[in-house]
Amino acid sequence: MTSPMYTASVPVLKQMLSALSDVLKKAEDHAAAKNIDAQAYLGARLYPDMFPLTRQVQIAADFAKGIASRLAGAEVPSWENTETTFADLQALIAKTLAHLDSFKPAQFDQSEAREIVLRPGTPKEKKLSGSAYLLHYGLPQFFFHVTTSYAILRHNGIEVGKRDYMGAY
Amino acid sequence: MTSPMYTASVPVLKQMLSALSDVLKKAEDHAAAKNIDAQAYLGARLYPDMFPLTRQVQIAADFAKGIASRLAGAEVPSWENTETTFADLQALIAKTLAHLDSFKPAQFDQSEAREIVLRPGTPKEKKLSGSAYLLHYGLPQFFFHVTTSYAILRHNGIEVGKRDYMGAY
Repeated sequence: MTSPMYTASVPVLKQMLSALSDVLKKAEDHAAAKNIDAQAYLGARLYPDMFPLTRQVQIAADFAKGIASRLAGAEVPSWENTETTFADLQALIAKTLAHLDSFKPAQFDQSEAREIVLRPGTPKEKKLSGSAYLLHYGLPQFFFHVTTSYAILRHNGIEVGKRDYMGAY
Repeated sequence: MTSPMYTASVPVLKQMLSALSDVLKKAEDHAAAKNIDAQAYLGARLYPDMFPLTRQVQIAADFAKGIASRLAGAEVPSWENTETTFADLQALIAKTLAHLDSFKPAQFDQSEAREIVLRPGTPKEKKLSGSAYLLHYGLPQFFFHVTTSYAILRHNGIEVGKRDYMGAY
């Protein structure tokens, strides 16, 4: 039987990242069709001290990468956040999806009890079981940044709907 | 052993709804302190064809109620969406939390295979396993509306941060 930790992580992360890729594609197409500078979307924020779209997508990808790697007991690969264009963000999502596909479900067996250390070696260090890490920390964070990416584009008039956010389920 | 379906639903929904309650309280307090009409927040939207804050909170509560009820094989209680004030929304969240607490973990045993029918009797009817319903439909929807509620308040200058969104984990 497939580990419930795999079932609750990799396929969910893939669904939402694939949907986010499609949402970003619509924004890119809209910008091109209307001769709008893509940076007007990529740099858009919901408030001055919130992250812009590019960073929201980077963080969503970062959580997807981190969740899968940590639960599988693998090293979390370090990627530089150098994305500045829609094409860069699509490449980042593709790389993240490939990373998610690199894991076998069996690597998640018993990961519910695996100790995960957040912010190790810092004053904010926190230890969680794999289960608490996925369900109470990783997924809420991941969904936050996927939804906020969508919200930034909606707020700027991109014609996407809940169906685009949800993707294929 | 507690059903992984319970572990992945009720405690997660409670964490996020409790955090949302605290975020809404900060907005209410801010409005009172600054003599701002609470409706300026409650009716705020990120785009004209998106739902305002009040409705976002109602939908988040609705998904929480529906997820737990359906997985437990219980009737989904029908609640009217009559909320118009911050106090009403707090009462709705409290009622939803009490509803979540009314379930025993054992009611979720084997719910991963329970057939869930979305939009029954309509052209958009869709059948999902309990597992797919929770992970690929219910939680993505729930997190969408919790995050969008937060985003509306952030966009309107309420001083909350990621820690407020996350709640206690």
